[in-house]
Amino acid sequence: MDPSLELFGLVAGAITSLGFVPQLMKGYRTRKLEDISYYMPTVLSIGMILWFTYGIFINSLAIMIANAFGVFCCIVLILMKKIYV
Amino acid sequence: MDPSLELFGLVAGAITSLGFVPQLMKGYRTRKLEDISYYMPTVLSIGMILWFTYGIFINSLAIMIANAFGVFCCIVLILMKKIYV
Repeated sequence: MDPSLELFGLVAGAITSLGFVPQLMKGYRTRKLEDISYYMPTVLSIGMILWFTYGIFINSLAIMIANAFGVFCCIVLILMKKIYV
Repeated sequence: MDPSLELFGLVAGAITSLGFVPQLMKGYRTRKLEDISYYMPTVLSIGMILWFTYGIFINSLAIMIANAFGVFCCIVLILMKKIYV
């Protein structure tokens, strides 16, 4: 894959992955994740595992890294909700 | 792109897009989105717009559709939070 395109994908992946960080921080700060649906991080994780696999197929490191980090964040979110509620 | 791979991507995209739907439903039902951070859907939208562009570059309809729907869901989530809080 074109390196500049791969870089673009890496930036896109970094931003989507970072999107979960403020949610984790807010949850950590307020100790409240009641309004978050368990289904959201669960379904997103399943989808992102598939995206990760898609990244392997099309040989895109950007897609693999972004989705691996995304799954990690979703698991943390689920665990935080389990602990706080 | 290989049609079966494109189909795989479409399934992955459909699942990640659908991940936001239970959150929207829960928010609609409870009228509460207080614990949701505004930054999450905002940052995710920016990232997904970049993924959409990436999808155009690599000519992947799966990536384009998944991220367009994802951005739509994030905008709805932001608006719902604005209305309910």
